[in-house]
Amino acid sequence: MKNIKLTIEYLGTNYFGWQILPEKPTIQGEIIKVLERILQHPVKLTGASRTDAGVHAFGQVANFKTKKEIPLYKLQSALNGLLPPDIKIISVEEVPLEFDSRRWAKGKRYRYRIFNRKVPSPFEYKRSWFVPYQLDISLMEKAKEFLIGTFDFTSFSKSDRNVDINPVRTVDNIEIVKKESHIDFIFYGRSFLRHMVRIMVATLVEVGKGKLRPEDIKEIREKKNRKFAPFLAPPDGLYLEKVYYDNYSY
Amino acid sequence: MKNIKLTIEYLGTNYFGWQILPEKPTIQGEIIKVLERILQHPVKLTGASRTDAGVHAFGQVANFKTKKEIPLYKLQSALNGLLPPDIKIISVEEVPLEFDSRRWAKGKRYRYRIFNRKVPSPFEYKRSWFVPYQLDISLMEKAKEFLIGTFDFTSFSKSDRNVDINPVRTVDNIEIVKKESHIDFIFYGRSFLRHMVRIMVATLVEVGKGKLRPEDIKEIREKKNRKFAPFLAPPDGLYLEKVYYDNYSY
Repeated sequence: MKNIKLTIEYLGTNYFGWQILPEKPTIQGEIIKVLERILQHPVKLTGASRTDAGVHAFGQVANFKTKKEIPLYKLQSALNGLLPPDIKIISVEEVPLEFDSRRWAKGKRYRYRIFNRKVPSPFEYKRSWFVPYQLDISLMEKAKEFLIGTFDFTSFSKSDRNVDINPVRTVDNIEIVKKESHIDFIFYGRSFLRHMVRIMVATLVEVGKGKLRPEDIKEIREKKNRKFAPFLAPPDGLYLEKVYYDNYSY
Repeated sequence: MKNIKLTIEYLGTNYFGWQILPEKPTIQGEIIKVLERILQHPVKLTGASRTDAGVHAFGQVANFKTKKEIPLYKLQSALNGLLPPDIKIISVEEVPLEFDSRRWAKGKRYRYRIFNRKVPSPFEYKRSWFVPYQLDISLMEKAKEFLIGTFDFTSFSKSDRNVDINPVRTVDNIEIVKKESHIDFIFYGRSFLRHMVRIMVATLVEVGKGKLRPEDIKEIREKKNRKFAPFLAPPDGLYLEKVYYDNYSY
């Protein structure tokens, strides 16, 4: 028996997210379909992050087990030959049998990309959030400090969230990077609640527009109630960039 | 009467090129359709470059004339509201009545983008040419010198080219820029023959792979016959980046 780790890039636009669903295209579903065709046995594929519909990845990680003897480079080229153009396997490695891509993850890095100019760009369509307003970076820098640390993030999570899930999470760091017409928010943490990154981004953008003050973020967080945070930033701008299994630094 | 200059970005993937065609989607056709809807009169739209099917633009320029009184910012937002997401107007200006976007162009800059790593990327699909082979930049740098200058470029143009067209063109400069997994070829010239940039790129790539020597480029050029140059690089990697009307520098 071998445990195989895949590192995956995908453009999430045409999928209903990572997790397999009956009769809907999903990233996990597409990869399992192709793996089962190559290996000729049922495959259980564990992903590090359950990205939502429309969310992209540069470094999703997943693993599965097989008894089949197949050279890894052949497996990779067979996978990439059969997968659609918007899903590609960028590396295939054998890992210890106990490795679990979700449980072993020490940290994750997400990038949320805003396209910030007056006119939308054909090249950015579905790949970033188009925000035509001027955003004050220094205000957003102040506001982000209220989101870094270990807190109950109920205010920044999907309201119909399963009540059994612990709403306490740790955001290790948030970086804001402005480069030409892009403003990227980079989030580091071991795990995030459903919609948490997108709600934090929408909240920071409200601060950048001057609609909220940086201190309001602390107040919203302390309410522990979804209805006090703003809307949800669209999935188009969100990228799972890296899953860390060692050397996690932020 | 006013003469209006449009600067246009488009992702060419879903179009049969710039030039209007009956019953096929084209960039010019889409823009004329929307302009005529806004202005309520027939529009003649002149473009600086007739980009081919699948070719993109960051800075296509076109102009048209109208007697309608409409503030330019309103025209731009009406255009962008009605145009599809893969075509956007990034500026609208009034120009002298004699301005002709094609004839007045002093120079054009095209970028040809290669994605050079072992595995294709979902994010690069239809936006660059995927070349998984190692390319020797210094050989390509030597080879490009044989393409800079004023020559008969028959060997590097579409073979069914109209014989009335003068095959003598001037390539003012070619830059080769490697950045991470991208290799970009930047071409400067007043005008290029049909397919000329894509054939030059395919030829340079053959040199980069070691299949042709840099000096072979000179020989191919001097044959003045299309059959001696290699295949055609795909349209996916080609971008019309800028049309210069003044301050043309290369």
